[in-house]
This record gives sequence, C-alpha cells and structure tokens, in this order.
Amino acid sequence: MARSLFRSTSARAVAAFTIAWLIAATTPAAAQDPLPSWNNGASKQAITAFVGRVTRAGTPDFVPVAQRIATFDNDGTLWVEQPLYTQFEFAIDRVKLQAAAHPEWKNTEPFASLLDGNVGQALASGEESLLQVLAATHSGMTTEAYERIAREWLKTKRDARFKRPYSTLVYQPMLELLNYLRANGFKTFIVSGGGVEFMRAYAEEAYGIPPEQVIGSSGRLKYQLRGDVPELLKLPAVDVVNDKEGKVVSIQKVIGRRPIAAFGNSDGDLQMLEWTAAGKGARLALLVHHDDETREWAYDRGSKIGGLDKALDVATAKKWVVVSMKNDWNAILPKQ
Amino acid sequence: MARSLFRSTSARAVAAFTIAWLIAATTPAAAQDPLPSWNNGASKQAITAFVGRVTRAGTPDFVPVAQRIATFDNDGTLWVEQPLYTQFEFAIDRVKLQAAAHPEWKNTEPFASLLDGNVGQALASGEESLLQVLAATHSGMTTEAYERIAREWLKTKRDARFKRPYSTLVYQPMLELLNYLRANGFKTFIVSGGGVEFMRAYAEEAYGIPPEQVIGSSGRLKYQLRGDVPELLKLPAVDVVNDKEGKVVSIQKVIGRRPIAAFGNSDGDLQMLEWTAAGKGARLALLVHHDDETREWAYDRGSKIGGLDKALDVATAKKWVVVSMKNDWNAILPKQ
Repeated sequence: MARSLFRSTSARAVAAFTIAWLIAATTPAAAQDPLPSWNNGASKQAITAFVGRVTRAGTPDFVPVAQRIATFDNDGTLWVEQPLYTQFEFAIDRVKLQAAAHPEWKNTEPFASLLDGNVGQALASGEESLLQVLAATHSGMTTEAYERIAREWLKTKRDARFKRPYSTLVYQPMLELLNYLRANGFKTFIVSGGGVEFMRAYAEEAYGIPPEQVIGSSGRLKYQLRGDVPELLKLPAVDVVNDKEGKVVSIQKVIGRRPIAAFGNSDGDLQMLEWTAAGKGARLALLVHHDDETREWAYDRGSKIGGLDKALDVATAKKWVVVSMKNDWNAILPKQ
Repeated sequence: MARSLFRSTSARAVAAFTIAWLIAATTPAAAQDPLPSWNNGASKQAITAFVGRVTRAGTPDFVPVAQRIATFDNDGTLWVEQPLYTQFEFAIDRVKLQAAAHPEWKNTEPFASLLDGNVGQALASGEESLLQVLAATHSGMTTEAYERIAREWLKTKRDARFKRPYSTLVYQPMLELLNYLRANGFKTFIVSGGGVEFMRAYAEEAYGIPPEQVIGSSGRLKYQLRGDVPELLKLPAVDVVNDKEGKVVSIQKVIGRRPIAAFGNSDGDLQMLEWTAAGKGARLALLVHHDDETREWAYDRGSKIGGLDKALDVATAKKWVVVSMKNDWNAILPKQ
C-alpha cells in the first residue's frame, strides 16, 4: 500500500522521515536518565541491568508484558515510616476525636495512654494493642465515609519533623523507579501491612497506583441495605493481616502470579522477596536500608518499626540488592 | 519544527497524508459492528448507549478511564454452567483419580455417591457437600501443581452435550462484549463464586482477563520452605465464599472501587448488580436470561444452578437490562 501512496522517491523519503519523527516525538529520549535521584553505582546498575534483561525480546530472560509484575512494600519502602507508622498517627488523631463518645477509653488501655499522649506506653503491649486501636478507629462507618476522612487527613495533616503533609512523605527515588518500571511494561503493586483502604486514599495520586493494585491488611466488611440504598459498613474486626508469609499468600490470592521484582525494607518483606527471587529466570529482590539519619532516619536491627534482624543477612547471603539511602540516593523527598 | 522539515507544499501534503494514514491504520474502523453476535434490539442498544454516555468527554456522564470498572460473573454469564458447574465436573474427576488413596471415601458421603456416579444424591445435602468435595480435591498440593492440573483438564476434557473442551464453552456474544468494553477503556474483572485458581487456569486465554482481574472463592494457603525452596500449599479449608453479599465485599477488598457496569445471571449476582446500579451517574446492570433450550439451556426460577428467584423481579422493577439468549444472541458458542 505504501508504494502506491508515495509516488516519488522524495515523497517516500519525506514520509519515512515523518514516521521516524513521529516515533521519536512519542518515545522518551533514550539519553534522558529515568532515575536521576539514584547515584550511579551498584544498586542503580542492578536495577537497569535487570530491566534490560527482562525486556529484550528474543533473549532467554525476556518476560512478556503481562507477566511483568512488581510488588512494593509501602511503609519504609515507598514512604517514611518513622518515628511511627503514619496510619497509627492517623488512628491516634481518630482516638482523640472519638474520645467524647467513648468515656470508657479513659480507663481502658491502650486508649488511656494514647489520650494522655503516651504513645510508647500504649504500644508497649505489642501488636495486639495496635490492632485494637486500628479496629476501633477504622470501623463504625461506611467505606465511603472512611475514604473521605482518610483522604482529607493525609492531604492536610503535617508530620512533626519534615513539616509536610503525610501524603507527600514519599521517596523521590522510588517514584522514579515506579515510573521507570511502568514505562517498561511493568504493572506495579503495593503489598503492604498497612490498611488497604488507608493506602488507597492517597496511592493513586502519590504513586500512580490505582486502588485495584493496592494490597494491604483489612478489616471485615458488611454489606447492607439502608432502606433502598446499599452500603458497605466497616466492622471492628481484623480480617487479613498482610505481613510476612501473609504477603505471599495475598500475592497469590489477589494477583495470582509470582512477581518478577519485589521491593521491601524490613523483615516483614522477607518472604515476599524470597518468593520473588525463587522464580525461574531473571529476578530482582531489593531491600531499602535506612542508613541516613541526617536526611531521614537510621535504623535496622532491633528496630520496633521496620526491623531488619533477618532480612539484611539473607539479602547479603543471596546477593539481593541492598540500597543505601545515604549513598545511593541524591534526593529523599520530592521538591515541594 | 514541522515547517522546517517539509520544505515544499507537496512534501507537506504527503506528510499530512502519512500521518492521517497512520492514525487510520491504528484505529478500529468505526463502521464495523463490535457486537456482531448481538441482534439489534433493546439490549444491544442499552449497552452501546451506556458506553457512548460514559466515554463522551465533557458531558455529565463522562467517566475517566481509571474508573471504568466492569465486573462479570462467570458461571452462566461468561460460560455454560448447566447441567453442572464445570468446576464440580472437574472435582468429580479428581475424586475418581484420588479414590485409591482414600479408601474411606467408599463409605463417606458425598464421596461414596460420586464414586457410584450418583451426582444428584451427592448434591442432595446442599452447598455444604459441594464445599466439602471442592476442599478435598483442591488441596494437598502446591498452587503451581494445581494450576497445571486444572489447565490441562480444561483444555482437554469435553462436555457431554456440546462435545467441546470445557475451556471453549464460553459465550461468543460475551467475548465480543468484553472486547468492546476494553476497546472503550474499561478494565474487565471476573467476580464469581467459582474457585479463583480454577478460573485463572483458562481466563486469560479464553477471555483475555489476566489473573489479577479474576476474583473468586478461595481456600486457605500456607507459605512454607521445602529445604531452600519456597512454596504455597493449598489447604483443605475454605477461606472466601465469593457469592451474593460476598461479591460486593470482594469488590471493595480487591478492586477498591465501585464498578460502573456489572453482568450476572443469577440470584448470586443480585447484590453486585444492586451495588453497581446504586452508584452515581450512568450505570449498567445486566442479567443474562437463559431461555434458549434449543441452543443452550432454559432455566430461571427454582433452578438449583443459576436460580433466578429474586434477581429477575428486581431487574424488571429497576429496569436493568435483561438479555434473552434466544432473541438477543444470534450465536452462542464461538466457531471451532
């Protein structure tokens, strides 16, 4: 067909040039660095080498687009998790707001300590306390009402150290990594211990990750008709705890495919990284190591939040990528 | 830039023509009917009118691409469910294959009846029996081993009436509808009572729906290391029953967004249709009515499989689209 369309050699040359120009105009320039906040070094090189391997058609490591699944932990991997998980800061604010309607909280732990401003004391009894506070503050309303409240809080409430809205406490290098992977045909998922509806309230805007690609912990829901209007009510009962082994189980249940790349920062991510790395072919398992107390925080072994007592050793033994925030990243948070 | 590239008027004309030709070559012809197996009539018109409304930018009913979520029941909506759910046919074959390893089944219902070829008797005790058989036959192996077995069976086992592999007992008009919606920016999900891993074993090939867009019932999974190799083991315990209210709960848990279009065929889909239709703006709720015993099956009220005791009345009252397979479809199964 092209031959009949373009009768002269020069017309054909112009047409060919136009096509080449159109392609060039709609393709990101290869020369532009897709990961400008990553310093050149072993970590950045491992990432780009992996993406190069799985996207090169006709080679043994090539992975079809539909199978390019990448899973990211959220707290400590995509955004700041210290000095306290953001969702817990939100829950504390909710406890204060709801306290008038719950006079019994004044004499019930962990609520009493939270109302006294003693977070450490409230958390002392461990994960059980945390789940209790989350269940109490994340229920008794419809999913839509909850979404509005969480969305508003995330946009407006500022953290104590960086003085920025929590929804902007995300890591610039990881935003670039998400975009880079997507530009290379990857589907990016969050697989986090955080509450799924809490994360969805900002994930699309902050990370470009739509709700159906956010997997998290969740409470029980009840479907009911209020008159003729159907609604989903959030119940004060935990359903899924999406951590450790639970992350792999959720990946299978929700995604149904083993990721080829996984990103985490704590022992809670170990099994997800293990499961990903054990797949056949080229795989990327990456651990973000918080070693920059000047620009963010420094913690690993023994930390109550984001503890790395096992996963750092496994990562070293298995030669996974360990990202030093101090050395590998030339920016931490996005410019405001 | 274009001006400097194309020096003569004729070269500019050729360039413009090339661009127009490239655009035309990559755009589906508007004149071609995307739903050729749908007869012209109210059902087809309701579908195309709805798609027209939500995709017309700048109008009040316009829905951004990211929010164009469509959910489909599977059994009886996308493929044949009579005279017995396909997954149950699969389970019966598994019972026969596993019988030697389970001598106790000879004296235990519902297994004894199934081994005697008496399916009706086996099912007489209701849903509990069915779940028991599914749990027993869909466990004791890794998720990967199960996927291989299900995939092979679906490709090779033929049904008694149509003499075709089960994976091809899909409705041609619904395949066209799935493609039509996707061509208009919809993300298509299965939300079915069927086992999620059973459906995933053929959904991508048959429907073009990837595993992460298949939501179904599921059993418990266990993550473990066999030596150094991680695996997911299927346990003989039901986790999620994705039917009725459960479908709406799963939609919120997995997709996190209310669909704007939903498709079902039985009372098990009523709540999903209700939830979808109650959203603000243009919504499409559609029920496939099996009224063609010549080409497929005819059943509704009182049917044990695909029973329509409530949903047909609600659909009529709420003016949802009710598809008559006999009158609205000029083809049932794809050509082989």
